[in-house]
Parts: sequence; structure tokens; C-alpha cells
Amino acid sequence: MDEDARDDAPALLRLLASGVPPRVLRRLLDSHRSGRAVLAAGARDWASHGLDAGACNALRNPDAIALARGERWLDAPRRHLIGWCQLDYPPLLRRIPSPPSMLFVDGDAALLWRPAVAIVGSRTATPGGCSNAATFAAALSQAGLCVASGLAAGIDAAAHLATLEAQGATVAVLGTGPDIAYPVRHRPLLDHVASHGAVVSEHLPGTGPLRQHFPSRNRILAGLSIGCVVIEAAERSGALITARLAAEVGREVFALPGSIHNPMARGCHRLIREGASLVESPAEVLEVLAPLAVDLARALRGELNASPDELPGFLPLPLPEGKDYNRLWQVLGHDPTGMDELSQRSGLTVAELSAMLLALELDGRIAAEHGRYSRIGV
Amino acid sequence: MDEDARDDAPALLRLLASGVPPRVLRRLLDSHRSGRAVLAAGARDWASHGLDAGACNALRNPDAIALARGERWLDAPRRHLIGWCQLDYPPLLRRIPSPPSMLFVDGDAALLWRPAVAIVGSRTATPGGCSNAATFAAALSQAGLCVASGLAAGIDAAAHLATLEAQGATVAVLGTGPDIAYPVRHRPLLDHVASHGAVVSEHLPGTGPLRQHFPSRNRILAGLSIGCVVIEAAERSGALITARLAAEVGREVFALPGSIHNPMARGCHRLIREGASLVESPAEVLEVLAPLAVDLARALRGELNASPDELPGFLPLPLPEGKDYNRLWQVLGHDPTGMDELSQRSGLTVAELSAMLLALELDGRIAAEHGRYSRIGV
Repeated sequence: MDEDARDDAPALLRLLASGVPPRVLRRLLDSHRSGRAVLAAGARDWASHGLDAGACNALRNPDAIALARGERWLDAPRRHLIGWCQLDYPPLLRRIPSPPSMLFVDGDAALLWRPAVAIVGSRTATPGGCSNAATFAAALSQAGLCVASGLAAGIDAAAHLATLEAQGATVAVLGTGPDIAYPVRHRPLLDHVASHGAVVSEHLPGTGPLRQHFPSRNRILAGLSIGCVVIEAAERSGALITARLAAEVGREVFALPGSIHNPMARGCHRLIREGASLVESPAEVLEVLAPLAVDLARALRGELNASPDELPGFLPLPLPEGKDYNRLWQVLGHDPTGMDELSQRSGLTVAELSAMLLALELDGRIAAEHGRYSRIGV
Repeated sequence: MDEDARDDAPALLRLLASGVPPRVLRRLLDSHRSGRAVLAAGARDWASHGLDAGACNALRNPDAIALARGERWLDAPRRHLIGWCQLDYPPLLRRIPSPPSMLFVDGDAALLWRPAVAIVGSRTATPGGCSNAATFAAALSQAGLCVASGLAAGIDAAAHLATLEAQGATVAVLGTGPDIAYPVRHRPLLDHVASHGAVVSEHLPGTGPLRQHFPSRNRILAGLSIGCVVIEAAERSGALITARLAAEVGREVFALPGSIHNPMARGCHRLIREGASLVESPAEVLEVLAPLAVDLARALRGELNASPDELPGFLPLPLPEGKDYNRLWQVLGHDPTGMDELSQRSGLTVAELSAMLLALELDGRIAAEHGRYSRIGV
């Protein structure tokens, strides 16, 4: 995170603590390019952006308790407040309707630039559902995707935990403030995600679990991700909201089928009927998301006119390593080669290969065209 | 079955025992309108229909053993041989590519005019799959549909048995001759279906289980039915062939989802990806098939320019009866009424109602328009 952005956090916090709606804050930040500049602009300028006297007064006199709490929270390592006007703001989140004006991030903010897949589902999932969540989370994170979820009981927790165990990247999007675990027993999980991944919230520190905040949390979860996998969901489940929001903003939606006697499969079946892709394995998710992740990485590099290494906040994938990668690297040449041929040459399965090839491609080490892969450079 | 048709059976049998291909036999039957007339037409006429000298000779000297076996088989009650040229030939089967030139039927040939649903699946189904097959077969047959299947082990047998237990109508389409049970242990089931429903085959009596006959059996099963429900199927399963053939001839295809860990659900998942409707309950199948069944009944009445009662071979549904029907009849008026209103008035569920309404509608006792139902006549 660059120093300018970090220095702007107190001003952004002031803006948020004023209670002025996000839509208006985004407009102000668009005009002035920083929280400090917004505050310096003064009442006449604010009024010209549509703020009434009450809102102008609120901007001058934000909620003192919230402000103090926010300042205290920010005053610790790895704590960030990323504004709409900043380069670090997650690029995919910009593209949803009513994006947050700013995000609290506890942990590694650069993860928000990594292609993410939301893994969601019921809080009252079956043991089989939780086990599927873990399998998908481990495999997708090992393939280089960031696993995003909502820190809830059931599927969410299983996805976060399995990703952490697989030493993958995980992001928890909260409906509470970034410092409040909900359910309370997920305090250790929140801390674990914050120290190894990132915890994200649009709410001021100290904000408790309010019912109306959860659907809007789901919109952030959907908005951060290039795809959304619903593992298990009852007929009325927040996971379905996340999936529909994801579909609405053009993200891929996947759902796992289940027995017709499992009530926790009903929501997934409904999604499949509505057009979600039925998936049986992480490899099927990867097959769809890998090219999207690569396109996204290219588009972002282009948008920013810079190589990822030069960008503050842009985290390339960890360098793929291990003996399987070596084996794959050996059989990859400069002539484009198809998946089947690579599988035959390396002895690795297509599922294993597709994950590894994605990681190498995102890393800029190989090129893929029409399903054929070749080394870039040496 | 009308007497003329019955009298033509020996001639039809001779045609079939000649080994002349079905395509040519259909052409001859189209020209001459009966088996006897084809035989009487003589070699010059046959040649004008494209038969070479060998085929003409075969028509004059059919396989004597096959002929004798066929005559013996036909010489028992409830045995039929229905030719392409006859009114009794199943109307939906006429619409498939390469329909059989004739069909052996053991049992109630009129059932072949009843709207049928094929219930198919793996021979090595799980106990859960067989139980689902039974549930769907019982519910769909009680709703007035004929349940068609292939008399195979697993799903097929479960569907036939449950339909028989529910005193519904069931048709078994064989890949063997109509007198050969395959697997052999299904002899009692074959006899039971023949005496309470109908057994159908395009093959001469005595024809054993030949590998190449089963896909063509599947085309008849698909062709006889307005829809096809796949309960459980492995990735390579004959049931998938039936389902695809059904889709190719424009019939509705349904598949039950299952756990991603159940290999017997793979084929169903594949079908769903290919466009089959995911269904969790018989009511969902009925919702789609009921209007089709009614349309079909109307079209057939129109095609034949007669009321069903006057038609040989046309079997209207058994008269719906029982206290639930009485309850429904009481709340049905002459003003068109929606399903929800009927459900409220009668205390019956929408699933129960839709099955009963289909039966009443097929029976010509009620009219349905735009999802609203009213009595016809008194």
C-alpha cells in the first residue's frame, strides 16, 4: 500500500463517520481524488455536490465515538482504509452497482487484487457439504485463486479454514465492522484470516451484526470475485442472494448438485435451473475461471499502464514451485502444446495441469492460446 | 384391437420373417395398407418398391422356423402384431426416424395410445436410486401417465414394479423378442407386465439378447413417450442414449441430480448440463408433461376425426375416482378457477391437484385454459 493512501486514512475515516451516504462520498472522492481534499474543499463545494446543511454539518462534526474507535483500530499494523479514489480499491468491486465508498481491510490488502472465487453456502450445512467446501477451497486456492467467503458458520468457515490449511489466500467479507466476529465463536478464525489473508468490511469498527448489513455484505463478496461457487444452500439462503448478485454483475455462478432428499441441495438446484453451471469438481470451476482470471490480469495491467511489479498493492501470484511444477516446466516448450499432450508427457492429470498452468499463466511465465500452452522467454 | 388388424397379423409376420429391412417394409405397407395386400401384390410390384431378386425370394420364402415360432406366439390371448399401416400403431412412435415396421405386443395394446413417460436409469443403480424410481413411477402413473421402461435390472425394474403396485399402467419395451426375458430372472416381471400392462418388441419371438438390439430398443422407448425421466445413470449408460434420442425427437428430458460423490449421478448431471430439466419431485415432471399429454390427446382425437370411445385401440384414462376426486369435483365450477384457489378450496396440495386435474382433463371432464380449470358439461 502506498504512503499517500495510508496518510489519507484519517480523512477517509472522518468522511465515513459523518454518516453521509456512500453514493455522495463516492461523488466527492471522484471530484477531489482524496479524503483530505474533500475535507479541505469546504461547505460551498460540498453543497455543490448535493449535500444539504445537515450533511455539511455532519462532515464537519463526525460521530466522535466512531471516529475515535476507527482511529484506534487503524493504529495497528496491517490495518487499512481504502477509499474509492485510490488505486488500491479492488478493481472488480468498482464495477458493481452501489460500490462501497471505502473498505476497511485487516491484513494483506494486496489480496483484493488477486482473482478471487467466492465459496458460499448454508450456515447449517451438512457435514458432507462442509467437506465439499473444504475440497473446493483447497483445490481452487492451490490453483492460485483467492478464496473469498463471509466468515459465517457452516460452508463459509469450512472454505476459509481449508484455504488457510492449504496455505492459500483467503478473504473474509464481513457484515459487521472489521473488528467484530459474527458468530462470536469465529473470533479466532477472524484473527487467523486477518493475519494470513485479509478481512474486509465497509462498516466502521465496532459495528455489530445488523440484519440489514448482510445482504449488502453479500454484494461486496460477489463483487470482489470473478466467480461464485454455491456448495450447499437451503431454499431461502443468503448464499442464493450472493449467487444472484454475482450473476447480475456478470460473474460466473456455479452450484453443486445433491440428493433430492437433501434440503440443503434445494437452493443449489434452484440456481442450476436459473442458469448456474452444475459442477462436480473444482477442475470444472477452474476450467471456466482460469481464462477469466488471465484476461482480468491482462486487463488490469493494461488499465494501469504498468507491469504488476511496479504497482503498489498489486500482488502477483506466489511463484509456483515444487516438483510437479518442475516436471511440467520440463515438458513445456516454446511450441504451443495441448493439454492432453502435456498430460501424457508429464504424467500429471488434466485437473492438476489446469491448476498449475493457470498459476504459471497468471505469473506471466507461459502463454496460452486456443487451449495450447508455451513458455514465454527462456 | 379391431378384427381386420388382428386378421392381418399372419401376413405381417411373414413380411417380418422375410428379413426385408423395416424401411422397405414400411414403404410396402404404405402402398398397400395391409400385410395381406403386400403379399398379394407379387414380385413385379415388390421390385417397383426397390426389392432385388433376393429380397423378393425372401418375401416368398420367409424363415420357416421364425414363422412357426411367431405363429405359435401369436396364437394366445392378448398377443398382437401391429403393423405400420394400422390405426393401432402408436402415434408418437410414427414420428421418430426409422420407426419399426411392426410391433409385437403382449398384453393391452391400447396402452400404447396412453400418454407415456419413460423412466430409465442404470442397471447398477443405488438403493436410493431404485427408491426414487419407485416414487416417481408410482406418482406419475397415479397421475394418469403410462410408465414405460426397458425391463432391465435396477431402475427399469423398480419403475415397472412400483407402477404395478400402484395399479398404474406400465409398458416394457424389450431389446429381445417379446417372449424372452432379459435378464432371465425378470421372467416373472415380464409375465406380470404382460398380464397387467403391455410388453412391446420389434423383434421376432425367440430373438435373444443381442448387444446391437438395445440401442434400437431405446429409440422405441423414447419414441413411445412424451417425456423421459433419468433417475440414475453412470457416465456411460444406455439411459443416456434413451434420453438423447428422446431429446432428438423433441420429447422432454428430465434428470434427477445426486451427490457429486455418487458415480450413478454423473450421467444425470451430464444431461442437465446438456439441457435436461433438473427435477426433484414427480410434481415438477407432471407440471411439464400434463399440458403436453392433454395437447396430444386433443391432437390425436383431431387426427382421427372421432371421439376416443369410437376408436378401436384408443383407451381413455380410467375414470378418476376416490374421495379426493369428489372433493376436487365439488370445488370445481363452470367458472375457470386457478390452481391456488382450487388448492385453498379443497385443502389438496398443488402437486395432488395437478395430477388429478390432468386425469380429469385427459378424461374430457374438465377444460383448462391459461392455468384455470372449469367443468365441462354438467
